[in-house]
Amino acid sequence: MTSFSQITEALAEQAIELPSWAFGNSGTRFRVFPQPGVPRDPFEKVADAAQVHRVTGLAPTVALHIPWDEVDDFAALRRHAEDLGVALGTINSNTFQDEAYKLGSLAHRDAAVRRQAIDHHLRCLDIMRETGSRDLKIWLADGTNYPGQDDLRARQDHLASSLAEIYAAVGEDQRLVLEYKFFEPAFYHTDVPDWGTAYAQVSALGDRAVVCLDTGHHAPGTNIEFIVMQLLRLGKLGSFDFNSRFYADDDLIVGAADPFQLFRIIAEVIRGGGYGADSGVAFMLDQCHNIERKIPGQIRSVLNVQEMTARALLIDHEALDAAQREGDVLAANAVYMDAFSTDVRPDLAQWRESRGLPADPMRAYAESDYQDRIDAERVGGSQAGWGA
Amino acid sequence: MTSFSQITEALAEQAIELPSWAFGNSGTRFRVFPQPGVPRDPFEKVADAAQVHRVTGLAPTVALHIPWDEVDDFAALRRHAEDLGVALGTINSNTFQDEAYKLGSLAHRDAAVRRQAIDHHLRCLDIMRETGSRDLKIWLADGTNYPGQDDLRARQDHLASSLAEIYAAVGEDQRLVLEYKFFEPAFYHTDVPDWGTAYAQVSALGDRAVVCLDTGHHAPGTNIEFIVMQLLRLGKLGSFDFNSRFYADDDLIVGAADPFQLFRIIAEVIRGGGYGADSGVAFMLDQCHNIERKIPGQIRSVLNVQEMTARALLIDHEALDAAQREGDVLAANAVYMDAFSTDVRPDLAQWRESRGLPADPMRAYAESDYQDRIDAERVGGSQAGWGA
Amino acid sequence: MTSFSQITEALAEQAIELPSWAFGNSGTRFRVFPQPGVPRDPFEKVADAAQVHRVTGLAPTVALHIPWDEVDDFAALRRHAEDLGVALGTINSNTFQDEAYKLGSLAHRDAAVRRQAIDHHLRCLDIMRETGSRDLKIWLADGTNYPGQDDLRARQDHLASSLAEIYAAVGEDQRLVLEYKFFEPAFYHTDVPDWGTAYAQVSALGDRAVVCLDTGHHAPGTNIEFIVMQLLRLGKLGSFDFNSRFYADDDLIVGAADPFQLFRIIAEVIRGGGYGADSGVAFMLDQCHNIERKIPGQIRSVLNVQEMTARALLIDHEALDAAQREGDVLAANAVYMDAFSTDVRPDLAQWRESRGLPADPMRAYAESDYQDRIDAERVGGSQAGWGA
Amino acid sequence: MTSFSQITEALAEQAIELPSWAFGNSGTRFRVFPQPGVPRDPFEKVADAAQVHRVTGLAPTVALHIPWDEVDDFAALRRHAEDLGVALGTINSNTFQDEAYKLGSLAHRDAAVRRQAIDHHLRCLDIMRETGSRDLKIWLADGTNYPGQDDLRARQDHLASSLAEIYAAVGEDQRLVLEYKFFEPAFYHTDVPDWGTAYAQVSALGDRAVVCLDTGHHAPGTNIEFIVMQLLRLGKLGSFDFNSRFYADDDLIVGAADPFQLFRIIAEVIRGGGYGADSGVAFMLDQCHNIERKIPGQIRSVLNVQEMTARALLIDHEALDAAQREGDVLAANAVYMDAFSTDVRPDLAQWRESRGLPADPMRAYAESDYQDRIDAERVGGSQAGWGA
Repeated sequence: MTSFSQITEALAEQAIELPSWAFGNSGTRFRVFPQPGVPRDPFEKVADAAQVHRVTGLAPTVALHIPWDEVDDFAALRRHAEDLGVALGTINSNTFQDEAYKLGSLAHRDAAVRRQAIDHHLRCLDIMRETGSRDLKIWLADGTNYPGQDDLRARQDHLASSLAEIYAAVGEDQRLVLEYKFFEPAFYHTDVPDWGTAYAQVSALGDRAVVCLDTGHHAPGTNIEFIVMQLLRLGKLGSFDFNSRFYADDDLIVGAADPFQLFRIIAEVIRGGGYGADSGVAFMLDQCHNIERKIPGQIRSVLNVQEMTARALLIDHEALDAAQREGDVLAANAVYMDAFSTDVRPDLAQWRESRGLPADPMRAYAESDYQDRIDAERVGGSQAGWGA
Repeated sequence: MTSFSQITEALAEQAIELPSWAFGNSGTRFRVFPQPGVPRDPFEKVADAAQVHRVTGLAPTVALHIPWDEVDDFAALRRHAEDLGVALGTINSNTFQDEAYKLGSLAHRDAAVRRQAIDHHLRCLDIMRETGSRDLKIWLADGTNYPGQDDLRARQDHLASSLAEIYAAVGEDQRLVLEYKFFEPAFYHTDVPDWGTAYAQVSALGDRAVVCLDTGHHAPGTNIEFIVMQLLRLGKLGSFDFNSRFYADDDLIVGAADPFQLFRIIAEVIRGGGYGADSGVAFMLDQCHNIERKIPGQIRSVLNVQEMTARALLIDHEALDAAQREGDVLAANAVYMDAFSTDVRPDLAQWRESRGLPADPMRAYAESDYQDRIDAERVGGSQAGWGA
Repeated sequence: MTSFSQITEALAEQAIELPSWAFGNSGTRFRVFPQPGVPRDPFEKVADAAQVHRVTGLAPTVALHIPWDEVDDFAALRRHAEDLGVALGTINSNTFQDEAYKLGSLAHRDAAVRRQAIDHHLRCLDIMRETGSRDLKIWLADGTNYPGQDDLRARQDHLASSLAEIYAAVGEDQRLVLEYKFFEPAFYHTDVPDWGTAYAQVSALGDRAVVCLDTGHHAPGTNIEFIVMQLLRLGKLGSFDFNSRFYADDDLIVGAADPFQLFRIIAEVIRGGGYGADSGVAFMLDQCHNIERKIPGQIRSVLNVQEMTARALLIDHEALDAAQREGDVLAANAVYMDAFSTDVRPDLAQWRESRGLPADPMRAYAESDYQDRIDAERVGGSQAGWGA
Repeated sequence: MTSFSQITEALAEQAIELPSWAFGNSGTRFRVFPQPGVPRDPFEKVADAAQVHRVTGLAPTVALHIPWDEVDDFAALRRHAEDLGVALGTINSNTFQDEAYKLGSLAHRDAAVRRQAIDHHLRCLDIMRETGSRDLKIWLADGTNYPGQDDLRARQDHLASSLAEIYAAVGEDQRLVLEYKFFEPAFYHTDVPDWGTAYAQVSALGDRAVVCLDTGHHAPGTNIEFIVMQLLRLGKLGSFDFNSRFYADDDLIVGAADPFQLFRIIAEVIRGGGYGADSGVAFMLDQCHNIERKIPGQIRSVLNVQEMTARALLIDHEALDAAQREGDVLAANAVYMDAFSTDVRPDLAQWRESRGLPADPMRAYAESDYQDRIDAERVGGSQAGWGA
C-alpha cells in the first residue's frame, strides 16, 4: 500500500471553504434553537471561520451568502478576513426569501420576477469583484408543490434564458456554478432536480459555467461517486457542497452518516483529476449545526474530509488496477478497502504538528478561550440565522 | 358494481377533523410566506374551520394544538365553536419548541426534562376536560442527529415510563394516541419511528392507548394500507393524520400526490371496520398550505377524502372476493380498479344538494365574501403560525 | 373542459409496441412459474401479440429481443407478422447472458469482450434491415457489485468508444436508442444509471442517437414526467419502456401501481410534442407477467395507456395556462385533476365500437377461444422465457 | 478508549453461521453465472463451509435449506459435518418454489395450499431433530403483485393460524424464527413486510417464537440498529441474516456497502445484550456471491463481521455515557467514532495467530490447494443453486 509519507504533499494542497451561514443559527421547520455566541454580522462570522482555519490549516476561505452577508463595505470585510488569515470565497445568491419568489425566481412564469432575480445575480457579480471571489453559486428553490401548478417546460425555458443573461455578465475570471437538488423546499417538482439538468443548462452557457454537487441533494440510493466521475469526465464539476444525511437533505456534519461514501467520493475526485489547487474543483461545506456547537462542528467537518482524503490517497492504484484488469472482484475490493480501513489519525496528528498546527484541533479549540469569549461578548444585537 | 345509491348512508357517516394550525402560516426551513387573512388567535382559526364545514358538511370538529391554541377560557372557545356549528376535537401536545426540548422530551435522558414534558401532557388532559375532547394525540420530535449522540435503549425505556405516567392520568372516556414518524426533525434516529414501535409502546399501556397513522410519516415505498390493515386487526388504530407527499413529510393536500394510494388506504379502513361513527378511528387532516390559500386548501382536502371514500365504497366485494378466491389476478385487480376508475363527482354533487349543501363547495366558498372579509379585517396583531 | 369528441383524432394516432418477451415465461430470482400456452418460438410470440392488436387496435408492432428471437429467416417472420396484421418493430440487443459478459459488455475493461458485444450490435443492425426495424435499443446490464471492483471512469470511456463504433454502422433511417437504469443486475454501480448519463452519451454520438426512458428505472421518488419534459426539450427522447412498480424495477402492468403518475407522464409527452405518429417517440411496453396470464396482461396494459392518454388529452390547456399564469395554485391543480378524475371508459368503449373494435377488449379476448387453443396446442417443445 | 486486550475474551465468543446455499450458484433474474468447483450436494456444501471455519475459527455451524439440502440420511450429514469440525445449524424452510405456492403459502387463501406449507414446516421440525438444530427459520415469499389481487386481512389471519399450528409442534428446545422482508418476490404487498408484523405474529405464539432480522430487508433509509435495539428490548430478537446492499435486497458481502452501518448494528447488539454464546441471538450470513468466488467471499464476510465487532467492543462506554448525559453531541459522537475509526486488523491478526489460526485467513485459503482441488474434482453432476 501507499505509505503516509507519499501523500503528505497532496494533503498539503487541501483547502476547504467554509459557509458563513454555518456559524449562524439554523434549525428545522419545527424549531430553530439559538445558541450563545452566535455571530451578529458577517464580520463575526468570518472571525469564527478563521478559528477553524487557525487550528486545522484546512479552511483558508469563507463563502458568503447574499443578502444575508450584505455589508456596506465589502473591501473592509475582505481586509478583515485577510487580517485574520483567511480570504473571502464563493458568493451564494438567494432567491428564495423575498415575497416575490414565492412561486419561483429565475424560472418564474412572470418576467418581472425573473427580472428581479436576474438583477440580484448581477448584484452578486458586482460584489464578487469587491470580494475577489471567483465563483457565483446558484442554488434555486424554484419548483412547484402540486401537479399542474405550473408548466414544467415553460419554466425550464425561462430558466435557460435567465441563466444566459446572468452568464453574459460573468467575467473572464469568474464562474457561474449551478447547483441541483432533488427536492425541498418544492415538493412536487424542482426546476434543477438532478445533475443531468444542471449539466444540460450549464453546457448551453459556456466554459465558465459548471455544476455544484451537494452531497445531500440526491434521491435515496444514488451513487454519488458515479456522478463525480461523470461530471469530471465531462469537464463540468465546479464544486462540492459537503454535508451528510441519512434521509433527505439533513445537512449533517460531512462524513457523519456514511464515512465510506465520503471516502468513495473523494477517491473518485482524485481519480478524475478533481483534487488539488489547480483542479478547478472547489471543496466547500454546506451544513447546519442545529444542535451541536457551531465552530467545533466545522472543525470536526474539515477533519472528517481530511481524514477520508488521506485514506483515499493511500489507495494502491497499481495493485488496484492489476486486480481490476484480472477481473478479480474480491482482490480489487480488498485493495480499495485496505485504504479505507486504515486509521490515519496518528499520522495526521504528527503531520499537523510538523506544520506548526495542533495535533488535535478539536482539543486545541476547546482549550482556547475563544468560545467562552464570544459567548460572553456577543450579547445583544440580532443573531445571524438563515434569514439574516 | 355497487351503485352510488347504496353508499349514501355510509357517506353520511363521514367526519373529518380539521387541524387548527392548517389555517395559520406555515412553510419550510427556508421560508414561511405569510398570507393575508390568516387568523391571529384560536377563535379565528375555529371560525375558518367552520367555513369548511359549512360548505362541505364533512368537517364537524377542529383539533387544537397546545400551547399554540392556549386560551384563557376554553369553555368560551368551546361555545364559540358550537355557535359556529362545529366542536373542538383532538388535543395535540407540543414538546418540541421549548428550549428544554432541544435534545428530546418524553425520551430525554434528563429526568427534569421528562418531568416538564409529562406535566405538559397532564395539562393537555385537563384542557381536554374543558374542551370535551376524547383524544390526546402525542407526536414527539424526540430523536438524535448523530450516531452515538445518545443511548437508543435508555431513551426507549424512558419513553415507556413517561407514557405510563401520562396514561395513568387518562380518563375513562379519553384516549392516548401515539403517532410515529420516520424522521424529521431528528435526522439520525427517531424515538417513535415506525408503527411497530408505536404499537409496542401503546400495547404496554392498555386499551385506551392507540396509534395515530400519519400518511406522510413512512419510508419511501412503504405499503401504508398494509399497516392500516394490521393496526385494525390488532385493535390499535386510533386515528389518521391525512396529508400527502412525493418525498419526505411534505404535508401536501391529501390525495394530491397519489390519489390511488388514498383510495387503497380508505378501502382497507372500510374492509377492516375502521370506517364510520362507531369505529373508534378518527379521520383527521394534518397538512400545510405553504403556497396555496388555506381555507380552500382545506375544502379541497376533505373533498378529496370524500371522493376516494365514495370510490372505495363502490368496490363490489362479492365479485372481488370471488376473483380473489379463484386466484384470478387480473380479474380481482379489475374489480378493484373499476371502483377506482369511477368518476363519483357528479353523484356527489347531486347528493350534496339533496342534503342542503352546495353542489360545488369550492365554488360556494369562492363566491362567498368570507375570504375578502377576513383579508380585510384581520389586520394588525400577530398571525398564527407553527410557533403560535 | 375539452370534450371527448375533440380528442378522438389524437387517440386514433396511438400505437404501442409490444415486447415479444412479455409472452414468454418470466419471474424473479426466486422462481419462474411457467404457464400453459406459452410460445415456444418467435412465430408464436408474434401470433400472441397479434391477438392484443386484434382486440384493441392499439398494438400494431412487436419488438424483438436478440438472441432470444433469433430465427433462420427473418423475412419469413416479417411476413408472418404482416399476415397477422402487425409488423416487427424495435430490435433489443442482449449482452447480459453470455458467459463473457459476467463483468460487463460495452463497458468491459477487456477489449475482446467489448469486441464481442459490439459485434452483437452490428448483427442486430443487420437483422433490422431484414425486419424493417428503425430502432436498435440498447439496455446494458453493465456495472459492478463492489466498490473498487472496477474503474468507473475507464468503463465510461470504453462505453463511449463502443457506442461510437456501433453508431457508425447505424443507417440513415435507423436509430440507436440507449436505455438507462438505476440499478440491477449490478448492485453497486451501473454504467448507464440515469438519464444524464444516457443523454451525455447519445449527445456525443449524433442526431440518430436518442434515449429510452423505462418508467421503472429510477430512484425512489424521482419525478419522471420532469425527465420526459427535459429529454423532449433537448430533442433526445426516443422511446418509452412502459411498466410500473412500487419498489424497484418490478415490471408490473403499466398503470397498475400509480395511475396518476402515468397520467402525468403522458400529459408531459403531449405537452412536449412527443405524442403522435410524427413525434419520433416510440411507446413500448416492457413488463413481466409473472403470475397473471400474459395475453390479457398485455391487453390490460395497452388499455391502461390508452385510458390515461385519453384523460391527458382532456386537459383544458387554456384554463390551465390561465390559472398557472395567475399563480393560482389550487385552480391550476384543479384543472389538471379534472381531467384525471374523468372516467373515460364509457366514451372509449363507444369509440372502439365505432371503429369496428370490441367495446370491451378484455372480454372479447376472454370470449374468444384463443387462450384455450394455445393452452391445448402448445404442448412439448421448450417454452420461451428470458433465456430463450 | 478500551484496549484490544480487554476485548479478546468477548471476541472469542463470536460464532457466525454460514448458509449452505452461499456455496451454490446464484444470480439475478437476468442470469446465473455458474462457477467451477461449486458443490453438487449438501455434503460438498458442508465441506466448503468447513474451510471457512478452518481458516477463521469463526464459523462453526452451517445452516441448511429444505428441500435444497434434503438428504436420505441426515445423521450421516451431521457426522460428516462433525468430522470436518463444524455442526449443522438452523433449518430454513422453502415455500416459494413449488407450483402450489405461486400465490402464497402459509398465508394463501386456499386451505389446501396452507396445509401443504404447514406440513413442509412439520417436516423441517423432524429434520431438526435429526440434525440437532435449534432454530426453524421461516422466510415467506407470500404476498401479492397487484392491488386488489387478494385480501390483506384474510391472508394475515391465515398466516397467524398457520404459524400457530407449526408452533404447536415446536419442541421445548426448538425455536420458530420468523423473518420479515420489505418486498420481493412480491411487488405490491408482502405478508410479513416489517419487524412490527413479525413481532406481532411471534408475540401471539409464545416464548419460543422470535424474529429474524435480515439486514437487507428494509425500506431505504431505515435505521436498522434501532430495530435491533427494540427487538432486544422486547425480548424477541432471535437471529440475524447478515448481508449488505446499496439498493434493494442485493445480498452483497456483509459490510461491503456500509461498514459504519454494520458497526452501529453490532454496537447495538452488544449494548442490548444480544452478543455472546448465551444471548440467544444467532449471527448468520445470508448472501449471494453472484460474481465473486464463493468460499473466499464467505471468508471475507465473517472477517468483516469480526472486524466491526472488534471495533464495536472498543467503544469506551464510560466516556460515551458521560458525554451523552451531558448532552454534549459532538463529544458523544466523537467517542463513538473513535472506536469506529480504529484499525483493528493488526491486533486481530496477532490474536488469530495466538489461537493457532492464520493471521491472514484470505491468504491462507488462497495458498491452500482447496479451490484448485474442487475446481478439478467437481466435474459432472448437477451444481447446486437456488433451485437445488
